[in-house]
Amino acid sequence: MPSNNSKFWLKNLARSSAEWINGCGPLSEVVVSSRIRLARNIEAIPFPHWAKEEDLKNIYEVMQQLAQENIIFRKFKLLLLNNFTPLELQFLVEKHLISLYQANGKHPYRGCLYNQEETACIMINEEDHLRIQYILSGLQLKKIWGSINQIDNEIGKTVNYAFSEKEGYLTSCPTNVGTGMRASVMLHLPALVRLNRLNEILKAIAKIGYVVRGFYGEGTEVMGNLFQISNQITLGLSEEEIIDNLEKVSRQIIEQEEKARRDLLKDFKNYLEDQIWRAYGILSQARIISSVEAMELLSKLRLGVELKIVSQINLELINRIMLMLQPAYLQILAQKNLNASERDIQRAKLIREKINPMNN
Amino acid sequence: MPSNNSKFWLKNLARSSAEWINGCGPLSEVVVSSRIRLARNIEAIPFPHWAKEEDLKNIYEVMQQLAQENIIFRKFKLLLLNNFTPLELQFLVEKHLISLYQANGKHPYRGCLYNQEETACIMINEEDHLRIQYILSGLQLKKIWGSINQIDNEIGKTVNYAFSEKEGYLTSCPTNVGTGMRASVMLHLPALVRLNRLNEILKAIAKIGYVVRGFYGEGTEVMGNLFQISNQITLGLSEEEIIDNLEKVSRQIIEQEEKARRDLLKDFKNYLEDQIWRAYGILSQARIISSVEAMELLSKLRLGVELKIVSQINLELINRIMLMLQPAYLQILAQKNLNASERDIQRAKLIREKINPMNN
Repeated sequence: MPSNNSKFWLKNLARSSAEWINGCGPLSEVVVSSRIRLARNIEAIPFPHWAKEEDLKNIYEVMQQLAQENIIFRKFKLLLLNNFTPLELQFLVEKHLISLYQANGKHPYRGCLYNQEETACIMINEEDHLRIQYILSGLQLKKIWGSINQIDNEIGKTVNYAFSEKEGYLTSCPTNVGTGMRASVMLHLPALVRLNRLNEILKAIAKIGYVVRGFYGEGTEVMGNLFQISNQITLGLSEEEIIDNLEKVSRQIIEQEEKARRDLLKDFKNYLEDQIWRAYGILSQARIISSVEAMELLSKLRLGVELKIVSQINLELINRIMLMLQPAYLQILAQKNLNASERDIQRAKLIREKINPMNN
Repeated sequence: MPSNNSKFWLKNLARSSAEWINGCGPLSEVVVSSRIRLARNIEAIPFPHWAKEEDLKNIYEVMQQLAQENIIFRKFKLLLLNNFTPLELQFLVEKHLISLYQANGKHPYRGCLYNQEETACIMINEEDHLRIQYILSGLQLKKIWGSINQIDNEIGKTVNYAFSEKEGYLTSCPTNVGTGMRASVMLHLPALVRLNRLNEILKAIAKIGYVVRGFYGEGTEVMGNLFQISNQITLGLSEEEIIDNLEKVSRQIIEQEEKARRDLLKDFKNYLEDQIWRAYGILSQARIISSVEAMELLSKLRLGVELKIVSQINLELINRIMLMLQPAYLQILAQKNLNASERDIQRAKLIREKINPMNN
């Protein structure tokens, strides 16, 4: 049953964590998470940007009814985003539950329908009527495809998707027409960065139709050596082909990163260990820390865990800290507004508490 | 009884620590140690630089006999420095038991006679026939004067010092003629450095006849914000006046440092605490560290202890680490020669073991 009490669920979200956080998926020593999203629109209703309030309300209510009655979606929570403050919306972006676009939208009846594991989530009245997203830890695009396909079909039983035999799914932005699919992997590539080998790889994959983005997708900066790689092309290939191709490209980059790590260990083992342990030392003790510095240090610590140099920390803890240290998440946890200086202090405190649980 | 087995006592010295290390003396939150040394020569024997081997042997043997027979000096150890390797001599310099000049000397029968507490030590055949030194923790110049005076008188019962009614004690270098006394204090002045207030103070005290040197005295660099302040003038003032004046100047600098610390705490408390704890974090975890960086971080940690921000560490531990991380001490402890890179690794290991005794 979706609750109307969105604020209640928001508090829950601050304590909960998504499946991908556990860091247990395949190839998790390089792949943080995999994600697929499908852009879908409903036949005979204008795209959200041109839709009337009544249209948007109609779509929201269809999804609300689905969430009340459908055997799958009954386990989902529905949030009406217009109820939320900008800070709360930013928090949902940081949780990867909604897009920046959805957070910044001005039109009414923007919604977010997500399941308890936070693997599946459907944005309502984003750039398209529906944006279905599925995330899992590690490299699991095929498994995700199975799950998201089921959700897509289930919604398709209730609504008629805007679809043309010739072009496929119709979408607000022409770059999504066709499958409406974007598949992506979030890769941790510190060794390729350190050895200056990444730029060449990124140029090569751009040529064959892949885009590289930051930790929060489109329009965001790369932080902590985390690179989101996704398909650019949605038309002319089947969903399976898109997934197969991204998986192949990902495996090649993973291999390169693993080779770079072996090279680092061969030539700079002491230096590498020093950098990793210093990062651990600073994160354990700092009293003021910016999110940029914290993400850099967490990247080093992550590498230490991935290389089994550091054993007292696991990837789940690093993923959790990485989310919590973001500006809005930090303020939601503190239950008050904090300016940048206050956040730097609060962030350092939170990281210390998470990294040295014994000291608290 | 002095032992002929100098190497045995050297090993002991690597494990032992001088009284000043305990960090318990008066005003130890700013003053690391106080020191007085007296330059003395024996009548009718040329200064060491011009003396014949037989003269030097004669002086050495007089002191050897004193060490065997005198009730005070029987508790001292006598080292014949010509037996030592350059590394071992450098280690004695790092322990503050001999001067750089004594370590680098080429003439025979250079010796060092020191007591068990390592408060008193007499260099034999240094620049002068005898250089008597006394060190205590904190600001204790008057107490030191009492003790060193007693040693000086005791030696004076056996030998006739070169002394002129007009000029006082005669010394190899004219700057020491008169009292032959140099009194000094080792001050930790991080707040004056941080607030850019120290240069002005040092200029002012230079004008009234004081010299500022580094952690190992003449010709050494300032490390870890430790400044050795000593009297330049040895002629025309009594010993008591020299000591009184230095004590007054020291107290003024201490006051300025304490004011600077209060100012730092008032205006930059969070920043200061962050710097202190980061230093602690890095020292606890680094795998490679240079002596310069280690001294800088130890200075921050020392300030944290002095300000009672850090309670799990004390000044004794910091003093001990500060000595042990020096190049020769490190190699004596490791019982092998280490190149610079190996030392940086060994140093980091030693600091970790001392700072996190639980982890070992």
